[in-house]
Amino acid sequence: MSAPCPTLQRDGDQVVILDQTRLPWQESFVRLDGLVEAAAAIRDMQVRGAPLIGATAAFGIALALKHDASDAALQAADACLRATRPTAVNLHWALDRMQQALRPLPPAARRDAAWAAAEAIRAADAEANAAIGHHGLALLQALAARTARPLQLMTHCNAGWLATCGHGTALAPIYAAHAAGLAVHVWVSETRPRNQGLLTAWELARAGVPHTLVADNAAGWLMAEGRVDAILVGADRIAANGDTANKVGTYLKALAAHAHGLPFYIAAPRSTIDFRCPDGAAIPIETRGADELRLIHGIAANGSTARLRIAGDATPACNPAFDVTPARLLTGIITESGVLPADGLARLAHSPAD
Amino acid sequence: MSAPCPTLQRDGDQVVILDQTRLPWQESFVRLDGLVEAAAAIRDMQVRGAPLIGATAAFGIALALKHDASDAALQAADACLRATRPTAVNLHWALDRMQQALRPLPPAARRDAAWAAAEAIRAADAEANAAIGHHGLALLQALAARTARPLQLMTHCNAGWLATCGHGTALAPIYAAHAAGLAVHVWVSETRPRNQGLLTAWELARAGVPHTLVADNAAGWLMAEGRVDAILVGADRIAANGDTANKVGTYLKALAAHAHGLPFYIAAPRSTIDFRCPDGAAIPIETRGADELRLIHGIAANGSTARLRIAGDATPACNPAFDVTPARLLTGIITESGVLPADGLARLAHSPAD
Repeated sequence: MSAPCPTLQRDGDQVVILDQTRLPWQESFVRLDGLVEAAAAIRDMQVRGAPLIGATAAFGIALALKHDASDAALQAADACLRATRPTAVNLHWALDRMQQALRPLPPAARRDAAWAAAEAIRAADAEANAAIGHHGLALLQALAARTARPLQLMTHCNAGWLATCGHGTALAPIYAAHAAGLAVHVWVSETRPRNQGLLTAWELARAGVPHTLVADNAAGWLMAEGRVDAILVGADRIAANGDTANKVGTYLKALAAHAHGLPFYIAAPRSTIDFRCPDGAAIPIETRGADELRLIHGIAANGSTARLRIAGDATPACNPAFDVTPARLLTGIITESGVLPADGLARLAHSPAD
Repeated sequence: MSAPCPTLQRDGDQVVILDQTRLPWQESFVRLDGLVEAAAAIRDMQVRGAPLIGATAAFGIALALKHDASDAALQAADACLRATRPTAVNLHWALDRMQQALRPLPPAARRDAAWAAAEAIRAADAEANAAIGHHGLALLQALAARTARPLQLMTHCNAGWLATCGHGTALAPIYAAHAAGLAVHVWVSETRPRNQGLLTAWELARAGVPHTLVADNAAGWLMAEGRVDAILVGADRIAANGDTANKVGTYLKALAAHAHGLPFYIAAPRSTIDFRCPDGAAIPIETRGADELRLIHGIAANGSTARLRIAGDATPACNPAFDVTPARLLTGIITESGVLPADGLARLAHSPAD
């Protein structure tokens, strides 16, 4: 089972990405030729999702070294890419791996090694997705055994193939369940202000997985009505104690799940765990521009993509992109190494990551 | 202190309403000539907010009786208006009052009596707003005494003057605080899918009250960051046990407030309490059309109002308009008779409403 279309791939000495700022309206691809384009693609969210951010940063190093593979160029590229977005730790993890692979080499050997190391990160992410799908499927099968109706799952934001190099994190178990013939239905949360829920709805529609779009506000009502069996979301950074940063609004869903005794799972590769970060309070939370709340993208009556102003320029707005869900609200973390209790991450700290 | 512009007023044998589906883009007024227009104005949310829905229904009876004030016409108008929206009990309360005032009268006496009874409902709502503002101000003064910074309040949806015939319910204490020189700042939740938070931001900007727009998803993060001192919202129906239906998303905010030990107040006139409804499970929750999630209104680049499609016609969507917050999560209910514990409503059951 391969992803419907690649989010990122090498083409000669360039990298081609699916431009997610145009989805679900247009499937268009952007060619990245150098460091600046790669950094801009991450910052402007043409690529998004913690694992895909990490892989794009790795390829950004390869692009940067094309014309100058000196120590100074390597350091400058590293610094430029690290500064793009603060919360997803996969960015730092991927750049650390690139540094480890390239710094010991002479500059002349770095170019080919950079492409190879980036490709290894991409391949490892796809493999991690598959393993997350496998471990998550077992969980979903156990939950499905308790109910006669299709399993009612809720997700937030997009943690599908668009967010990764493979089948996704939170959506990987859902795709695995669908492929295995397990009846599932997904409540897709709109995920304001950037509406990544529309990406999830688009992915699920392409894959034929039954789903329903809801306003973020509806999550509590759905749970109170008994219409949700479990919640699965991705993660941007997991602290050593299990506190997890994910798309803003995740915390509200976790509180509601806790109030209703519903299982709440994080699905993420081990590269999302930051053992240097002791707890959620130490995770930097990105604040993005107010225009994400004031402007909205869609399709106009004439069929072209258009931008509409929904709040005036003068409307003050605050736009945190993530929030932190405390470990105590998490039922478990589905990683490529299995499903772990949120307070049981320590055992991964010193075992090899892949 | 009078409301900035009337949401509803009689003009001869017609009723003029501020068309809230055009706000905050255009201040335009619509003239209601008869029952059908009044019912459509409620159903299509040209008027909205539980107290204003009630008052509009009362004037709808007066409009209906202009040409035929028979028992049959009165009953038909009553049935037509009751069917417009299911959750706000103020609708039924106002129609009950109109029935009590008009049914005993001979048809010839009903026309003038209907206008007078509707006007009394409008005036009583404005008075209730003022009393809610007065009682709520005392609460806010007590909270402000504990902090050196401007009091940080959060609201949801719009429970301001646009939702009522006076200064609002949840916003009345905020306007009273601002008028009294108490420094306040309001976190305004966008309130998807109909974005009534933009109405609240517009109201607060007109009144010069400091405020900041946030995505609904950001509420938990703001509370966790210690940036909220109290939450004030309106209500569409309060059950006898204190369980409260309000705009969808209220429940998530109440759960978060509870988790962070923050006071969570409902502000509503006594007409919002439904003593015939034992608890939240008995409150009918309106489900509105999927297009509210698929289409969005705003201002195009050329300055005209426009509608944009953000999710395809084929995207399945579920759109509950309200949710229920259990009484245990409420710090109190600010009514025109004072601030009551949510489990202390019984003492109002047999005392006169105004």
